[in-house]
Amino acid sequence: MRILAKDIPQAAREKPEEEVMVQGWVHRVRELGGVAFVILRDRSGLLQVVLDRNPDLTPETVIEARGLPALNEKAPGGAELKARSVTCVSKPAGELPYQVNGDPDRIGLEAILDHRSLSLRNPKIRAIFKVQATIIESFSAYLREQDFTEIKTSKLVGSGTEGGTELFEVSYFNRKVYLAQSPQLYKQTLVASGLERVFEIAPAYRAEKHDTPRHLNEYVSMDVEMGFIQSERELMDLERGLLARIFQDVSRKNAAELALYKTEAPSEQEALNAPAVPYDEALKIASEAAGASGGGRIFDINPEAERLLCAWSRKEYGTDLVFVTEFPRRHRPFYTYPLDAARTMSFDALFRGLEITTGGRRQHDYAALLEAVSKFGLNPESLAGYLAVFKYGCPPHGGFAVGCERLTQKLLGLGSVKEASLFPRDRKRVEP
Amino acid sequence: MRILAKDIPQAAREKPEEEVMVQGWVHRVRELGGVAFVILRDRSGLLQVVLDRNPDLTPETVIEARGLPALNEKAPGGAELKARSVTCVSKPAGELPYQVNGDPDRIGLEAILDHRSLSLRNPKIRAIFKVQATIIESFSAYLREQDFTEIKTSKLVGSGTEGGTELFEVSYFNRKVYLAQSPQLYKQTLVASGLERVFEIAPAYRAEKHDTPRHLNEYVSMDVEMGFIQSERELMDLERGLLARIFQDVSRKNAAELALYKTEAPSEQEALNAPAVPYDEALKIASEAAGASGGGRIFDINPEAERLLCAWSRKEYGTDLVFVTEFPRRHRPFYTYPLDAARTMSFDALFRGLEITTGGRRQHDYAALLEAVSKFGLNPESLAGYLAVFKYGCPPHGGFAVGCERLTQKLLGLGSVKEASLFPRDRKRVEP
Repeated sequence: MRILAKDIPQAAREKPEEEVMVQGWVHRVRELGGVAFVILRDRSGLLQVVLDRNPDLTPETVIEARGLPALNEKAPGGAELKARSVTCVSKPAGELPYQVNGDPDRIGLEAILDHRSLSLRNPKIRAIFKVQATIIESFSAYLREQDFTEIKTSKLVGSGTEGGTELFEVSYFNRKVYLAQSPQLYKQTLVASGLERVFEIAPAYRAEKHDTPRHLNEYVSMDVEMGFIQSERELMDLERGLLARIFQDVSRKNAAELALYKTEAPSEQEALNAPAVPYDEALKIASEAAGASGGGRIFDINPEAERLLCAWSRKEYGTDLVFVTEFPRRHRPFYTYPLDAARTMSFDALFRGLEITTGGRRQHDYAALLEAVSKFGLNPESLAGYLAVFKYGCPPHGGFAVGCERLTQKLLGLGSVKEASLFPRDRKRVEP
Repeated sequence: MRILAKDIPQAAREKPEEEVMVQGWVHRVRELGGVAFVILRDRSGLLQVVLDRNPDLTPETVIEARGLPALNEKAPGGAELKARSVTCVSKPAGELPYQVNGDPDRIGLEAILDHRSLSLRNPKIRAIFKVQATIIESFSAYLREQDFTEIKTSKLVGSGTEGGTELFEVSYFNRKVYLAQSPQLYKQTLVASGLERVFEIAPAYRAEKHDTPRHLNEYVSMDVEMGFIQSERELMDLERGLLARIFQDVSRKNAAELALYKTEAPSEQEALNAPAVPYDEALKIASEAAGASGGGRIFDINPEAERLLCAWSRKEYGTDLVFVTEFPRRHRPFYTYPLDAARTMSFDALFRGLEITTGGRRQHDYAALLEAVSKFGLNPESLAGYLAVFKYGCPPHGGFAVGCERLTQKLLGLGSVKEASLFPRDRKRVEP
């Protein structure tokens, strides 16, 4: 029976006379005075395998080794395998395009993405997706505890809710459909259907032409929708609790991964203390900060404002998370619930200088929605499918979405959101 | 503070003098001797709200009621709310297209799917998705416990692994890409990358023209891939354990939902006892069963064979789950690992008369894959991206996928798989 690298120290302490078998990749080979040290890498970590002859193994060969576990202070993890036999399971068929062990910065993003089966063997690169898996698990677990139901909705839609300049078109039998930009209509439908509280983790699509470190054309949207709320404040409280849980779980489960990035997740308290700043005030804060460093006035919550507001929040409230609230009506879709004639019950969450969430209360009243549609100059006929959801009794509700890759990026301090996507899609990249 | 319908009995026992507030939909209204009984429905269930006057409420109106909780043996759940006030929150804007309370069979599938915000208010219809949420949660939890990492891969692919007659085409900026039929290439990439054990729950697409009760053009694929296996038997063992867990969790968490369908989930032992029948023998068994009831010989594991094999498994092994193994090479893709010249290390899982899983060990050896590609008459250049994954050391591995909607359908005995999809897509349906 195979045992994992991480379990060798225990085996060495408890049953040093019992032969064990390990399997994994050759991470590194070193010879020293007639003895060969093969560092084997499996999903649990690294293990030193000691051989009394040169095994003639090139890096990244998959091997199986049998032998006795032995304590050795100098070996990684404090133990090693004294090998009796090493078998080659799978040999690289050609020269590696780059060295797996190197510093990710020196491999470069394009090469990392071109060769995922290779680049993810680098522990630092793999760490990103161990953290991402925790984020997804914690998100789901927290919401289930709050009585949310996980849903799976269609990603093929007849049309976009808000018309469609940023939609990808799909040939669907004899007609055209589009890749969904968000599951929002479906979330709302399911709140109205009596599920009341729903969440979904699924791909979402934006046909934006930007190619920047903050954009992906396909991303994992972690969506939430909740009925019987009074305002967006309940949604922000939910997100504070949700992020507090995610931060806690990442700190607890991914200490090793965080250490590789020399970073820490925020504390639970930081998430819970995140301030909420109305839009106008946020612009003022950002403009003052920009002015203090010689910049001009800021007229929008743009990337610069996002950075400045997070710096402000860190300084004033000791947290990397800040909500901007009360966005003007002209900046939000027609279905956003009005606070007054000019402002809406909506918010963004900014984390470490980047917007990770957009959310808000939605209009649930059928007559008011019809009015908003006409006020925004939209065509009620093309929105008939959307409007029908609110026709037969719908509670006040709202929701938000957290960008999974952006949250991963910012938790680890990655330069580009593309690093936080296993197989990112941008204007140029559709492979692998 | 709002309390849920299901918590009223406890409130009535413990704090009958304390006013509570409930929110939900009007399920039914009845008047009797000057007293009105409003049955309120929220996400937790039904509650009788008693009023001393006619509240003039039509079904499906969203209301808020305040009053005192009181025990009453005759009320559903053994308690009711003696209302002091009832407020209307949201009124239906028109006549309902059908009665929510009715028997789903009388509403009809098309009407159910056309009006999801209405049809899911029917407790029996909503039950389907409570069970589905449990399936998804259990699947993930079980695999995490077995050290699998959850992954999120792209659904936009440059081309299909096996050429593309059943692919949906997407206009992606200035080029054509396709909706992924399965995450298989990505799962294999990530096994090879050293994650070793991965799972994903995500949409998958098949541009099949069939419109049958067993087909969806977009479905939720619950995918698993695992490194360092010797044969498909380890995969079947994993699936037995996985289904055993899912069946247990559904029995435990969804007793009420199962009761609405007058059915039970199989026992843990049934899943663990599922037999494995080699392909040739499976055809013999199915042919004999078909012959016994006057039918002809069976030459393929077709829908009739699936039903007959499950009936056989129930009779001989007392379980609704059966694996068919050792599929002929000609019936499986080029990358399936050969058992011998004619047969492969592959399997299907059949459950209650329907195929719910296809899986198998894959070829991990680069040279052997190149050979298989040429033997199958495929073009190695168009498969270069696939082949590259195996070039730099890849362990023996394999995997399988469980169709989430099919498993849901069969657990509840639904007539069509479309009933088990919130927003199903077929040749004719892309709305809502």
